[in-house]
Amino acid sequence: MKNKKEIIAAIVIIGNEVLSGRTKDLNTSTLSIWLNSLGIIVNEVRIIPDIEKTIISTINELRNKFDYVFTTGGIGPTHDDITSESISKVFNLEYGFHKEAFSILEKYYEKGQFNEGRQKMAKMPMAANLILNPSSGAPGFYVENVFCLPGVPSILKAMIGELNNVLVGGDPIISKTINLSTYESEIAKSLTKVQNKNADVEIGSYPFFRQGKLGVSIVLRSIDKNKIDTCKLQILEFVKEKNIEIVELD
Amino acid sequence: MKNKKEIIAAIVIIGNEVLSGRTKDLNTSTLSIWLNSLGIIVNEVRIIPDIEKTIISTINELRNKFDYVFTTGGIGPTHDDITSESISKVFNLEYGFHKEAFSILEKYYEKGQFNEGRQKMAKMPMAANLILNPSSGAPGFYVENVFCLPGVPSILKAMIGELNNVLVGGDPIISKTINLSTYESEIAKSLTKVQNKNADVEIGSYPFFRQGKLGVSIVLRSIDKNKIDTCKLQILEFVKEKNIEIVELD
Repeated sequence: MKNKKEIIAAIVIIGNEVLSGRTKDLNTSTLSIWLNSLGIIVNEVRIIPDIEKTIISTINELRNKFDYVFTTGGIGPTHDDITSESISKVFNLEYGFHKEAFSILEKYYEKGQFNEGRQKMAKMPMAANLILNPSSGAPGFYVENVFCLPGVPSILKAMIGELNNVLVGGDPIISKTINLSTYESEIAKSLTKVQNKNADVEIGSYPFFRQGKLGVSIVLRSIDKNKIDTCKLQILEFVKEKNIEIVELD
Repeated sequence: MKNKKEIIAAIVIIGNEVLSGRTKDLNTSTLSIWLNSLGIIVNEVRIIPDIEKTIISTINELRNKFDYVFTTGGIGPTHDDITSESISKVFNLEYGFHKEAFSILEKYYEKGQFNEGRQKMAKMPMAANLILNPSSGAPGFYVENVFCLPGVPSILKAMIGELNNVLVGGDPIISKTINLSTYESEIAKSLTKVQNKNADVEIGSYPFFRQGKLGVSIVLRSIDKNKIDTCKLQILEFVKEKNIEIVELD
């Protein structure tokens, strides 16, 4: 996919619970779909453990390689939540109570309920910008191009909208799917020919087993709707020739 | 977690469909749980696009840093399946029809059905070792410490058992979970104290909302069952003191 205004991002999932297999990562999908809609392409995801030096080296590598880096996890109240302190070290910023975050949390909790654990959620790089949390109070934050979000999927989902006006994207990526009742091997050759004629459209081919139906999803992605349409026509041509049924999936 | 015999692995999920958010990655969880049971700790996961130079540089970096590297995806019949050819280049091995793989697939498909697309699935580093596929015929393969598996979760699941006698693990990681009806902030301080007294047990704290219940899962991981038991007793002590209810989850 050639795109002169291509804006690229990396996601860093911080958490032993994902690496151990205990928790399935749902945040990559949420973040990628949202970022694509803003014209930001996710080109790499890393899942790393709650180890300070790993967090620091990973963030330092990626923040220089990508326009944006998004982290999830590790900003809660317990001892294994070390993202905020690690990010402070990445940017050589003082780690301590963020004035605005502290005030938000103080108001959020009832009197007497704003205990030491909850106060820890106001600790971050003191000069960070906040990402407000309309779901559960405790804000995320960002420093330069590194955005730190929570690990709980529902809370992350509620927060990302806060960044729509902060992030600067490129051309939005348009995606079109054609579901076919066939095997990949039946269409592989024809699909290769179409891909070779349409360099600006990324063509993906994925077997599916859904709603009792078996087939192949062809996914076309590009910033140029016209190029997707041209590509789609060429695919429909060989689909017709080969007498392949098009399948509707919910 | 100190472990003199620690064997570490990385997982590389290859596929634009995961990076775009279209498909949620289920393979990390399957692989991590299985590897833990063999005494192999997954310390990093990367999700990368179907781009040859990215695959090659990622594999080269990780195969030197980790005892084992597992890839998923990109070994099917279509143009976007480029893992096998990329791995050939990583090891400077000839890419072509693997004799045994070709023979397996030739037998698997009915006469006349073993078309060009399906034949491509027998193309890989010609000197690779096969990973048999009891589910859908087409084998995976491995070269040195790099193991290449398919992206379709059900097929991957059916294949990994083939490697139980190939991989050499360390001490298996034992995991114990205690589910508490509380907030993380209520136990953060006590949990930190327990963690400080139990350096060889990794203690994770994760909020949950399941089966209509809200609470915190405390996950203890170690290679030493006695150390987990000691740690658990210390946690149950403060749980009792604080009058926190223990929750049973399915």
